[in-house]
Amino acid sequence: MNFQKQYQGYLAFFEKELKRFCAEMTHRPPVLTESMRYSLLTGGKRVRPVLFFGTLEHFGVDHTAEVGLALALECIHTYSLIHDDLPTMDNDDFRRGNPSNHKVFGEANAILAGDGLLSEAMCLLLRESARSKAHLDAARYLANAAGADGMVAGQSADLLYTGQTGGEEELDFIYSHKTGKLIAAPIVMATLLGGGDADAAERFGQALGRLFQLTDDILDEKGESVKMGKTLGKDREEDKLTCVKVYGLKRAELLADRTAANCLSLLSNLGRDDFLAAVVEFVRNRDN
Amino acid sequence: MNFQKQYQGYLAFFEKELKRFCAEMTHRPPVLTESMRYSLLTGGKRVRPVLFFGTLEHFGVDHTAEVGLALALECIHTYSLIHDDLPTMDNDDFRRGNPSNHKVFGEANAILAGDGLLSEAMCLLLRESARSKAHLDAARYLANAAGADGMVAGQSADLLYTGQTGGEEELDFIYSHKTGKLIAAPIVMATLLGGGDADAAERFGQALGRLFQLTDDILDEKGESVKMGKTLGKDREEDKLTCVKVYGLKRAELLADRTAANCLSLLSNLGRDDFLAAVVEFVRNRDN
Repeated sequence: MNFQKQYQGYLAFFEKELKRFCAEMTHRPPVLTESMRYSLLTGGKRVRPVLFFGTLEHFGVDHTAEVGLALALECIHTYSLIHDDLPTMDNDDFRRGNPSNHKVFGEANAILAGDGLLSEAMCLLLRESARSKAHLDAARYLANAAGADGMVAGQSADLLYTGQTGGEEELDFIYSHKTGKLIAAPIVMATLLGGGDADAAERFGQALGRLFQLTDDILDEKGESVKMGKTLGKDREEDKLTCVKVYGLKRAELLADRTAANCLSLLSNLGRDDFLAAVVEFVRNRDN
Repeated sequence: MNFQKQYQGYLAFFEKELKRFCAEMTHRPPVLTESMRYSLLTGGKRVRPVLFFGTLEHFGVDHTAEVGLALALECIHTYSLIHDDLPTMDNDDFRRGNPSNHKVFGEANAILAGDGLLSEAMCLLLRESARSKAHLDAARYLANAAGADGMVAGQSADLLYTGQTGGEEELDFIYSHKTGKLIAAPIVMATLLGGGDADAAERFGQALGRLFQLTDDILDEKGESVKMGKTLGKDREEDKLTCVKVYGLKRAELLADRTAANCLSLLSNLGRDDFLAAVVEFVRNRDN
């Protein structure tokens, strides 16, 4: 099966399950449910669930049986976007081509929508963790990757180094935590469920996360905001610590190429997989 | 043993464990660890861990073996205070007699400190849930009580009805969710671990939560800010939906007395317990 068709298959399945999950939300007051649904349902490439499903199938595990963990991944990713977009954080008015959560519902409701989504993830992870030892391990991996030793630490460092001098070491910390942890998580979680080599999965996932953030920084500098669905050029304006700032655009592009090659090399330790190899190319060449 | 001595015993034990937990936090960048520690360690009556320990002992369970769930309770309570104090939420400059988290670390770091603490709770709950079926049930109860069907919903309603007309029904929703869920949680969790009647525990816990919020609203109207460690009179100023607004101060005090009596009656369904009965009196008569 070709890459696009397989990706679209995972995507269609996940969107259907996500819609069901959102329809079953009956939190009161209505504004809480609406604000949580709004950010879950408006766009997104669903990269993390797709990586999770693709890696599960690599290990011969039926991805349709693992919706709970995929939903937890997307709830955590979405909460982080809502909080990151807040005026006091990255102050982004647009996300996935639509007004940010706080532009629609106000800041207070946006904070609570994020808190609500992280709490939903906590409930999902506890439910899934009861299914088997491997599910428990996968859930714990995600909880750790999302938290104060993972994504939250990366966002904290991102804020800290904005407008500051910082070099490769600081950039690596931001990359590996803000992005790497939650890109590696679905790959490691699926590998744990499939009985594969979790360390090899983590190395591949971290490299892929690095590639993802490299291309994100590069696209902020030279991408098209219509395709990206968000305001661009903000990194430079706000003096964010990005690969473009540290290396310059040309070297950053070379680094992205080298990282893509490294991803493919690290992937081979998990065993040949055409879909995951195509994901690497997709992330390198994306324009949104 | 008398009430004060037993309370102080639980408190001293918990403070020691909480200090150890905070000392073992090595999240980077340092500001993340510092901001999380700041709010965990500055003051607080530790009502939820104490209720948890007291109820465990009621059922003959050694409370010193259940630190993980107690820490999760306090992490969740503390994250909710940090986010609630933000300028866009309740805008409180003081908490527990000290500057609020965002007054010390800034709003962005305060949001992340809250996110980090909720994530720590998620990690703790997943760890504890692996110990037994009862631990899993207790962890799931807390996750649900904290989330979008629980405390987060209560805070959302609290915001929604600020400056609005609202009556008993709306007030009941705020009370049962914003406060009731997380006061009932330690009592229900301990009852699940002790093999008691969880429904009876929930009814007692919800009544105690109601009493807690009634006295909180009353103290905001007539308490002393030095003792409370926070700015008072803000509910009226911001036109919050409180029992004082709905019933007037005098009827609110009568309602608090009646609720305290109801607590004692509901407690009897769990079996006579001098400590928990004294907690009811303590909450009714508190001045901070």
